[in-house]
Amino acid sequence: MNITLKPIATVHNAIKTPTDDFWGDIVSTLVFDEALLEQTALQGLEQFSHVEIIFYMNQVVSEKIVTGARHPRNNTALPKFGIFAQRGKNRPNLLGASYAEVVSVEGLTLTVRGLDAIDGTPVLDVKPCFVEFLPRGTIQQPSWSHELMEDYYKVGNPKVAHR
Amino acid sequence: MNITLKPIATVHNAIKTPTDDFWGDIVSTLVFDEALLEQTALQGLEQFSHVEIIFYMNQVVSEKIVTGARHPRNNTALPKFGIFAQRGKNRPNLLGASYAEVVSVEGLTLTVRGLDAIDGTPVLDVKPCFVEFLPRGTIQQPSWSHELMEDYYKVGNPKVAHR
Repeated sequence: MNITLKPIATVHNAIKTPTDDFWGDIVSTLVFDEALLEQTALQGLEQFSHVEIIFYMNQVVSEKIVTGARHPRNNTALPKFGIFAQRGKNRPNLLGASYAEVVSVEGLTLTVRGLDAIDGTPVLDVKPCFVEFLPRGTIQQPSWSHELMEDYYKVGNPKVAHR
Repeated sequence: MNITLKPIATVHNAIKTPTDDFWGDIVSTLVFDEALLEQTALQGLEQFSHVEIIFYMNQVVSEKIVTGARHPRNNTALPKFGIFAQRGKNRPNLLGASYAEVVSVEGLTLTVRGLDAIDGTPVLDVKPCFVEFLPRGTIQQPSWSHELMEDYYKVGNPKVAHR
């Protein structure tokens, strides 16, 4: 079975090539498709502090998609984990799902801070953050996953000119 | 532009028709597609307490998809919000994204608790929960969104026979 989706928006930001870290203060503008949506599709979204954005990582070539296990970030010092036990981009269906901070909403344009998607990325869905939809109960994860994230949401991306 | 995806797994559980609330103790078995994936695709996932599951709400008829604003849950006591300022199912691309608790992992079968998807739902991605990927900073949301969620993850779904 195939499932066919249409992007609802496109990401515009300063990150032009895939990068691992320093997404913390990247500002992205999401321009929604006026041909698919009414002008009210984002109405009231400014009342939420955060959004979840589901995007399609179309810069990944299909030959690089992993369907079994690999070392996280191809770091052979780490044990192999299945592709669905990591969040890397080389995954079946190439979907990203990340929370970002709402900066502003104007008509069909949404500006966010801290989205880990590069310029030109197609967006498939935007959902407001409800605390009730965050994980219930105590979260446990292996130590390598904490180490991997050390610089991920740091600010001051060296690829971006800072004031 | 069209984006074509293939389900990686299917949800099996006791909820046969769409329902709004009482997902808290629903146990779902996700059976992954052996034709698309290697047996190691879930390896190590049992080291994570929670997963995020992206699924396709194929039970929604396309005529019901909202492309502008509506009253949340069609409750006219609430103001109209854009479809991307709510998390309801009648949305463009019909994607759901929810966290659930990992119960067990065996080969290409993942059992979870608290997934808000009905029996037969196609799954497009599973990602482990990293605390670092949860929203950074203080979360704010309008009061109606808290009220809407009051029974959502309660346990004891009346549609399920309980021991």
